[in-house]
Amino acid sequence: MVLVSTRNPLNIGAAARAMANFGFSSLRVVNPYEPSFREARSAVGAADLLASAEEHKTVAAAVADCSLMIGTTALRDRKLQHLIYDLEQAAGLISDHLNSGRVAVLFGSEKTGLSNQDLSNCHWLLHIPTRKDHVSMNLGQAVALVLYSVARHCEVNLRQEQLTPELSELANAGDLERISAILMQALQVSGYIKAGTEGMSEAKLRLMLRRMQIPAADADVWLGMLRQILWKVKH
Amino acid sequence: MVLVSTRNPLNIGAAARAMANFGFSSLRVVNPYEPSFREARSAVGAADLLASAEEHKTVAAAVADCSLMIGTTALRDRKLQHLIYDLEQAAGLISDHLNSGRVAVLFGSEKTGLSNQDLSNCHWLLHIPTRKDHVSMNLGQAVALVLYSVARHCEVNLRQEQLTPELSELANAGDLERISAILMQALQVSGYIKAGTEGMSEAKLRLMLRRMQIPAADADVWLGMLRQILWKVKH
Repeated sequence: MVLVSTRNPLNIGAAARAMANFGFSSLRVVNPYEPSFREARSAVGAADLLASAEEHKTVAAAVADCSLMIGTTALRDRKLQHLIYDLEQAAGLISDHLNSGRVAVLFGSEKTGLSNQDLSNCHWLLHIPTRKDHVSMNLGQAVALVLYSVARHCEVNLRQEQLTPELSELANAGDLERISAILMQALQVSGYIKAGTEGMSEAKLRLMLRRMQIPAADADVWLGMLRQILWKVKH
Repeated sequence: MVLVSTRNPLNIGAAARAMANFGFSSLRVVNPYEPSFREARSAVGAADLLASAEEHKTVAAAVADCSLMIGTTALRDRKLQHLIYDLEQAAGLISDHLNSGRVAVLFGSEKTGLSNQDLSNCHWLLHIPTRKDHVSMNLGQAVALVLYSVARHCEVNLRQEQLTPELSELANAGDLERISAILMQALQVSGYIKAGTEGMSEAKLRLMLRRMQIPAADADVWLGMLRQILWKVKH
């Protein structure tokens, strides 16, 4: 992650925070506006990362140990001399390259982006697709999108927990049948379903229950509630 | 996009900017810290969006016209009562639902996130996978990731230009043969390739040229340069 001529300390801090979130550790700044860089270093969050950030005078010096250099661009009117990949393609290429070497992703200043001189260090350009009439992104947000996309392609570093497995398992057919049967009785006893129309109503009810996707863990609770209601409507 | 109890005006502004970037227009704030909201409204960028932002007293009022409500969570120690989808799955589900109805994505305050009361309005939760030791994201960055991912799944709104097609087309086999032949001559004449080893060297060279992926648009320039060099080494 190479920030070139960044002026806003909040953006440097936000870039560092996104790096921490997504498991990247090497932050380099080129020719920063000095007061901003000092202020960013004192910012909360991602403190280690900012403390170890390297400062360089030129882009060439900042990327000297990298073997793939990528510029980021909002694609305004610039006359482009590079191949351009959109974020998804770029993230795949970056994560492939990370198996064999270091990758530098360059972000330019908030106002003017990367200069042609900066871009001459790059193999290709990365572009985040946006609406045509709002191409300019907040720097910290652009950094977060790039790092998230690369991390997702790497599928390392990130928490890969099984999320709430007990809630993602759906009620089985037996539970659904039991719920359906009790609900039918309750609807008949309470007069919602008229005699002679049970067939159609039951089919509709069965479908509605399945569309709801009841979690397995909740099935017994629903059964209990319905049984209680059924008992009440019968008495 | 529903921001609940947001305190930092920069985050409200950043959320609005990301909405403009990715083509979303309805921003609602619930119970904002008033000075922040006033300050955010006067921020540059995404001015229309902020001017038309709706203010509500409760989450229920803010999402009244939506048919899918989603909470965002960093999954700390909270006792979870909801199904959780990671960002990629969630973005797919949200973009599907947008074909038929409005979706509310709720973001909580910077310090405490969404309360259990807020979450009781939600069908399920969205989680952005991060490193385990850095789960807390900057609010503006989290908003940008969610909106970008949804927009990518929708594949509408975004610039879908063919990016630099003239540079993505590679030099054809004929060009590569011509370049290869001239380069071989130059290497032989200059003494780089020793007599008797041409076969092996040529095979290696042909492979190296193909690994470089020379753009078609550049082939003639390379040929011209090599021809000139060959002429020079011969004379």
